[in-house]
Amino acid sequence: MALFRKRLSKEFGLEKKVGLPPGTIVHVGEKKTEKTRVTVIEYDREGFQEKEIEKIEEPFILKDKPTVTWINLDGLHQTEIIEKVGAHFGIHPLVLEDIVHTGQRPKTEDHGDYIFTVLKMLYYDEEEEEIIGEQISVILGPNYVISFQEREGDVFNPIRERIRNGKGRIRKAGADYLAYGLLDAIVDHYFVILENLGEKIESLEEELVTHPTPETLQIIHKLKTTMISLRKSVWPLREVISGLERGESPLITEPTGIYLRDVYDHTIQVIDTIETFRDMVSGMLDIYLSSVSNRMNEVMKVLTIIATIFIPLTFIAGIYGMNFKFMPELEWHFGYPLALLVMLSIVGLMMIYFRRKRWF
Amino acid sequence: MALFRKRLSKEFGLEKKVGLPPGTIVHVGEKKTEKTRVTVIEYDREGFQEKEIEKIEEPFILKDKPTVTWINLDGLHQTEIIEKVGAHFGIHPLVLEDIVHTGQRPKTEDHGDYIFTVLKMLYYDEEEEEIIGEQISVILGPNYVISFQEREGDVFNPIRERIRNGKGRIRKAGADYLAYGLLDAIVDHYFVILENLGEKIESLEEELVTHPTPETLQIIHKLKTTMISLRKSVWPLREVISGLERGESPLITEPTGIYLRDVYDHTIQVIDTIETFRDMVSGMLDIYLSSVSNRMNEVMKVLTIIATIFIPLTFIAGIYGMNFKFMPELEWHFGYPLALLVMLSIVGLMMIYFRRKRWF
Amino acid sequence: MALFRKRLSKEFGLEKKVGLPPGTIVHVGEKKTEKTRVTVIEYDREGFQEKEIEKIEEPFILKDKPTVTWINLDGLHQTEIIEKVGAHFGIHPLVLEDIVHTGQRPKTEDHGDYIFTVLKMLYYDEEEEEIIGEQISVILGPNYVISFQEREGDVFNPIRERIRNGKGRIRKAGADYLAYGLLDAIVDHYFVILENLGEKIESLEEELVTHPTPETLQIIHKLKTTMISLRKSVWPLREVISGLERGESPLITEPTGIYLRDVYDHTIQVIDTIETFRDMVSGMLDIYLSSVSNRMNEVMKVLTIIATIFIPLTFIAGIYGMNFKFMPELEWHFGYPLALLVMLSIVGLMMIYFRRKRWF
Amino acid sequence: MALFRKRLSKEFGLEKKVGLPPGTIVHVGEKKTEKTRVTVIEYDREGFQEKEIEKIEEPFILKDKPTVTWINLDGLHQTEIIEKVGAHFGIHPLVLEDIVHTGQRPKTEDHGDYIFTVLKMLYYDEEEEEIIGEQISVILGPNYVISFQEREGDVFNPIRERIRNGKGRIRKAGADYLAYGLLDAIVDHYFVILENLGEKIESLEEELVTHPTPETLQIIHKLKTTMISLRKSVWPLREVISGLERGESPLITEPTGIYLRDVYDHTIQVIDTIETFRDMVSGMLDIYLSSVSNRMNEVMKVLTIIATIFIPLTFIAGIYGMNFKFMPELEWHFGYPLALLVMLSIVGLMMIYFRRKRWF
Amino acid sequence: MALFRKRLSKEFGLEKKVGLPPGTIVHVGEKKTEKTRVTVIEYDREGFQEKEIEKIEEPFILKDKPTVTWINLDGLHQTEIIEKVGAHFGIHPLVLEDIVHTGQRPKTEDHGDYIFTVLKMLYYDEEEEEIIGEQISVILGPNYVISFQEREGDVFNPIRERIRNGKGRIRKAGADYLAYGLLDAIVDHYFVILENLGEKIESLEEELVTHPTPETLQIIHKLKTTMISLRKSVWPLREVISGLERGESPLITEPTGIYLRDVYDHTIQVIDTIETFRDMVSGMLDIYLSSVSNRMNEVMKVLTIIATIFIPLTFIAGIYGMNFKFMPELEWHFGYPLALLVMLSIVGLMMIYFRRKRWF
Repeated sequence: MALFRKRLSKEFGLEKKVGLPPGTIVHVGEKKTEKTRVTVIEYDREGFQEKEIEKIEEPFILKDKPTVTWINLDGLHQTEIIEKVGAHFGIHPLVLEDIVHTGQRPKTEDHGDYIFTVLKMLYYDEEEEEIIGEQISVILGPNYVISFQEREGDVFNPIRERIRNGKGRIRKAGADYLAYGLLDAIVDHYFVILENLGEKIESLEEELVTHPTPETLQIIHKLKTTMISLRKSVWPLREVISGLERGESPLITEPTGIYLRDVYDHTIQVIDTIETFRDMVSGMLDIYLSSVSNRMNEVMKVLTIIATIFIPLTFIAGIYGMNFKFMPELEWHFGYPLALLVMLSIVGLMMIYFRRKRWF
Repeated sequence: MALFRKRLSKEFGLEKKVGLPPGTIVHVGEKKTEKTRVTVIEYDREGFQEKEIEKIEEPFILKDKPTVTWINLDGLHQTEIIEKVGAHFGIHPLVLEDIVHTGQRPKTEDHGDYIFTVLKMLYYDEEEEEIIGEQISVILGPNYVISFQEREGDVFNPIRERIRNGKGRIRKAGADYLAYGLLDAIVDHYFVILENLGEKIESLEEELVTHPTPETLQIIHKLKTTMISLRKSVWPLREVISGLERGESPLITEPTGIYLRDVYDHTIQVIDTIETFRDMVSGMLDIYLSSVSNRMNEVMKVLTIIATIFIPLTFIAGIYGMNFKFMPELEWHFGYPLALLVMLSIVGLMMIYFRRKRWF
Repeated sequence: MALFRKRLSKEFGLEKKVGLPPGTIVHVGEKKTEKTRVTVIEYDREGFQEKEIEKIEEPFILKDKPTVTWINLDGLHQTEIIEKVGAHFGIHPLVLEDIVHTGQRPKTEDHGDYIFTVLKMLYYDEEEEEIIGEQISVILGPNYVISFQEREGDVFNPIRERIRNGKGRIRKAGADYLAYGLLDAIVDHYFVILENLGEKIESLEEELVTHPTPETLQIIHKLKTTMISLRKSVWPLREVISGLERGESPLITEPTGIYLRDVYDHTIQVIDTIETFRDMVSGMLDIYLSSVSNRMNEVMKVLTIIATIFIPLTFIAGIYGMNFKFMPELEWHFGYPLALLVMLSIVGLMMIYFRRKRWF
Repeated sequence: MALFRKRLSKEFGLEKKVGLPPGTIVHVGEKKTEKTRVTVIEYDREGFQEKEIEKIEEPFILKDKPTVTWINLDGLHQTEIIEKVGAHFGIHPLVLEDIVHTGQRPKTEDHGDYIFTVLKMLYYDEEEEEIIGEQISVILGPNYVISFQEREGDVFNPIRERIRNGKGRIRKAGADYLAYGLLDAIVDHYFVILENLGEKIESLEEELVTHPTPETLQIIHKLKTTMISLRKSVWPLREVISGLERGESPLITEPTGIYLRDVYDHTIQVIDTIETFRDMVSGMLDIYLSSVSNRMNEVMKVLTIIATIFIPLTFIAGIYGMNFKFMPELEWHFGYPLALLVMLSIVGLMMIYFRRKRWF
Repeated sequence: MALFRKRLSKEFGLEKKVGLPPGTIVHVGEKKTEKTRVTVIEYDREGFQEKEIEKIEEPFILKDKPTVTWINLDGLHQTEIIEKVGAHFGIHPLVLEDIVHTGQRPKTEDHGDYIFTVLKMLYYDEEEEEIIGEQISVILGPNYVISFQEREGDVFNPIRERIRNGKGRIRKAGADYLAYGLLDAIVDHYFVILENLGEKIESLEEELVTHPTPETLQIIHKLKTTMISLRKSVWPLREVISGLERGESPLITEPTGIYLRDVYDHTIQVIDTIETFRDMVSGMLDIYLSSVSNRMNEVMKVLTIIATIFIPLTFIAGIYGMNFKFMPELEWHFGYPLALLVMLSIVGLMMIYFRRKRWF
């Protein structure tokens, strides 16, 4: 149970560092990597250069080069590295605090000479059958992009590939297009999660029709809470991306704006799908409940009918089990078969009556 | 089940081409035609010319003719044709991507020298008793309209007819009126779907009153999910058409604006009807549940009453079935008929009591 | 059933004339009068003139007279008359289409030199116990008002009376005040419908308390759907009238604007009342369901208690009905009365226990 | 029942004077006083003068005096008095109509040289255990305030007192502050009503826990409908007072604006409280239903268990009540006690099984 | 019960001082401290000075010093002290009224030369297992901050510490940063409450799965009402802080604005979490109800099956208990074992039938 609790308060970022002065950079999430890994890719139209930085001390990047520089950090617990990067690029302490304090709501902030964006990357954990959220922060400057991940992921690999082999617009465009590329990769990954959920919902619908069990209810409930937390992660994205797209910032050029509109459309589509899934899961709960009660009613009805048929018969048997001295029927020769006949005809009449009333 | 899943992820456009650079034109929907069919109609006040284009290579259309040109493509899987058309008219790669990537949310985008609109055409599949959505994209340029359909349809035939015989305003008006005509034809077709659904709802209401079965519940549930997906297709239309109508684009002339307002009114009417149908179906679920439980209660009550009447009688029979040596009643000459009389009067009293309490 | 269907698709205007060019004037509603009746009233401060026009061919009204002219048409199926009137006053074909195509959503359109308004008039059909909607269109020009009704009604009679005897402001004011008067008469009539519904709801509330039957549920359901369709008719009215009142059109003078604000207030009041009625009806459904289940529970409980009391007694009787050779109690002289006593005391104890547990 | 109906249609102002020209001043509410009582208070910094006016004919107030004049009318049925007052101060006929036509929705209207406000005063009728609404209209002119009440009330007495003894700001401030004072008194009185309701809800919550009865359900339902109508009365107040506060009218000075903001805050608080009460009452309904069904289940379960235990025993007794010739057990000497022992052990086993399954 | 009522009317601030002139400073909450304690901290970049003021009479603070002055008052019942402070700083009487009148809705008011903010501080009472709200008012002037608390609390201690040891920005920044610090401390404390609630919800979820009891329902209900009142306290905060942040007031400098945006984000996060908790608790109610009814059904089904199996057996025993003279079976030598065999085979057949129907 303790473990479970840890997860919930993490999900909502409840482990606030109460009492510390604002802007204190303390990482509160789980430690998901051994060491913070810093990789740098510099590129322009002509070529690219890729390196992994071991010692953060050396003046590692020339901020004012004409090329586009993409710095990616995997792992947030070595706060001293993040503080150094922050100091190098002049990032506001509150922004750094947000980066290391996972559990942020997706948001975007325009700080004039850079734009800060926080998002949730979603993974599907096959073992636990759960959706896991990871916080990804992206800082877009005039000619650089810094991305912060909680742990090493492979979602940005296709973008790295595109930079390496120079396919598509990416090498020709500026830092804003790179930032767009990162957002696009994240939002695209939501579709994978949704497809996964869609499959779950469909197999559950089948199960509902063929053989509903109490476990079905548990799964429906779990799906429902999954929807709730998915929604919480994705809804604010709408504002985030439309905030970027409306683009009053000079950091985002107009052609990239068109691409951001495309990401925006995808976000709307993701939200739409989540809402529809929510409706479907709610409908499934109704169906489950009424089908369970239907089955129950069916059982009760048949059993009650059986009981009801035998009760009058038993009564008749009881009558002729009485020990009165003078009971003429008992002396009749055909008393016994007659009694049986009477019982049979009672059964028959009741069956006809029940049938006519469509009780079975 | 696999088939079913395929449909759901298609409906929500979940099969994203994750990892590909944006603007890659890959068709992800089902292949619904053998070959992409391209038909071109050119017309002006004086006359019209209609042809089917076999080889897309030749410089097929003069973009700057004074006539209105309507290019219609049936089938989206031959992406090379769509790319060629796109290149010819200078369409943005992201727009082409949206065209072939079915599962888009209805939307409209003003790209300056052309307006791009995506809609859902709805068909009713008689066999599967399902509503099937098809994506239709319309590009409106200064003197041309390009429409993309997933498969050959007959919804645009009336418009072709009107162009051929020069009836109505169509030959006198510009490309914007043609685009309006296409939208109008699509929205008009929604009414056919709604009438169909309306009939279903009414026959179901009848069924609910006369003989509700568990199948009724299944149908109600199916109708409900149909409503959900209908709503998803139609709601965004509102914005789409009002976006066109507000018409800051010079591509849409004022007289056509009035016609677009008319389409807008129809869309609102469609949405209104869907909402009302939704409310009605929800109400039917309530009615179904309470009528089923009413019937069940009725059965249980009658059966329980029968049981309750016989239980005391059987008890009395049991009493005189006891083998005590000294039971004076057993010796009485009229003991047996007296016992029967007592039983009868108990039945009578219970009946009176139950009736007075209005239990049956 | 067929008849019922016709009504629903009529209510939502689903019988679209699919495929016809827009602006085609085809009447799709029911034919409610034998002949379209055209009456014209001309009036100014000094006097008034009233006539019924038989032949629409003759140039029947001078559009540019200084008097106010009110043309009223009862019956929409003779579309040639409506077309002629439309041509005479220069009405847009789409407007004429809306007039004859009943099933429109209430709306108002400013066409520059005239304002077009569509509303729903509601009648209560005593026989069918239903609310029936009729479409009323009003066109307000600089010095004329044209009103179109589906059938002859008496709602506008008080206005005719006021024109005839010159009471109130009407003869002193312009055409806009006349148009206001028509709207006011229609909205005022809604109050009659609401009072009617209010009475129904109150008598139903009484019935719920005194003797709920399955029919009560049917009536509640009917009331609920009535509310849904009422709401659909009245909600858009809000926008319609506030659209008129905001009055950017020079056709509506400022003094009339104040009167329109009054109609607006009434509309809000109507909407408020409908919403409250809806809430009340929903609450009644809850009350009905729980009171029915309460009654059912009551019945089941009493019956079960009776059964439960007799079961142990029957068991005891069964014991002494056994045929074992050596059962000392059977030989006792007071065995039988003792057995009866034991039974009686069991009944007593159970009664006390049940009472203490407040089971009856 | 008739009486009840009258109240409902009154509450919603449904008794419209259909057909009368707009602006006709006809009182439609109940006649709540014998005679309309007109009291006038004039005051300024120096002193005040208070009189009751008997004959309304004499030119009773000098509109242009520098003092503040407060005219209060109790009773609305003597419409000729209201008409005279209206004529004297140049009030629009539609405003006068709204004043006498009780059942208005709270609203405020700026007529340039005066502001017209309608509110609901709420009383709690101890006998009927109902909340009764009374319409109060306030007209604020440059140096006068006219208030109209349906019947004599004591809500404004504290204000009269303050004027008389010159306490607080009231004598120093203008007519707008007086109008504010009236609104404040009305809104303050809502808190009394709410406290009353709060007590009801709390005692009901206690009752729910200790001994829920069907009457509890009735009370919950009544509370629910009370909330609905309260809400209807108070919600529009929000707009009313914010409309006054935003104060584009020169009639309301800036210092009074601050006081109006205070009233606005109180209104929001009232609305908040009503919403919370609504949620609480809804929650109580859920609790009631599930606690009733819990109790019912408990009863049924115990009774069913008793029945279930005795059924196998009775069966065994039945076995040895059979009259077969050759039943060895019957001859055994310890047959009878053995049978009893078997029965006892069956009871024991069942008890253990039921306990283990936690069925009781 | 009386005690309980007191709490509710306090929570909603219902104990209005009806009839008193507005701006009368009367404390209506509970008296939570013995004496109002006034502490003053003055600080600037160089140093700080801290004192507790005993006699409020002496001109205790120089309003126009260049340092930042923070006056904190614990306890609101000594209204004369609050009035004196108010007079000293020129606070509007209505503001003072709001300060002492606990039960205010969170709000912020810009009075030109000072900003007034009311908030709810939330404590978790371990004993009563309740969340207790305390009203905290903050007045921000050009170089002073006055905070009013209902009782001594330790939430502001970390801020005092930071002032004392000069850590962070606080000593370098102005009064607005101090006010921000107070708000931040309050909002941060909400996370503690939420974590607490989160733990409760999780342990409840466990309980639901393992052993739901009627008490579980009570706790769910309590959690639900807690959520309702939490929501009421926190929702308005959103507006409050965004109102401060939008910062049209010159009292709030731009750098502090960025910090306020951070508090705003936290508030949104708090609201989000509350909403999700609400959804989770609602879902738990559904789960509880259906799991209870599942258990009940399970019990009823098993018991009914037992009864149903024995009823036909008892009937057969009854048959051979009849006393007819001529019943050939009774004479058979193997009659008795045969009868037992028939009974056994009936049991077997029924078991097979029930199993096949999956009834147990």
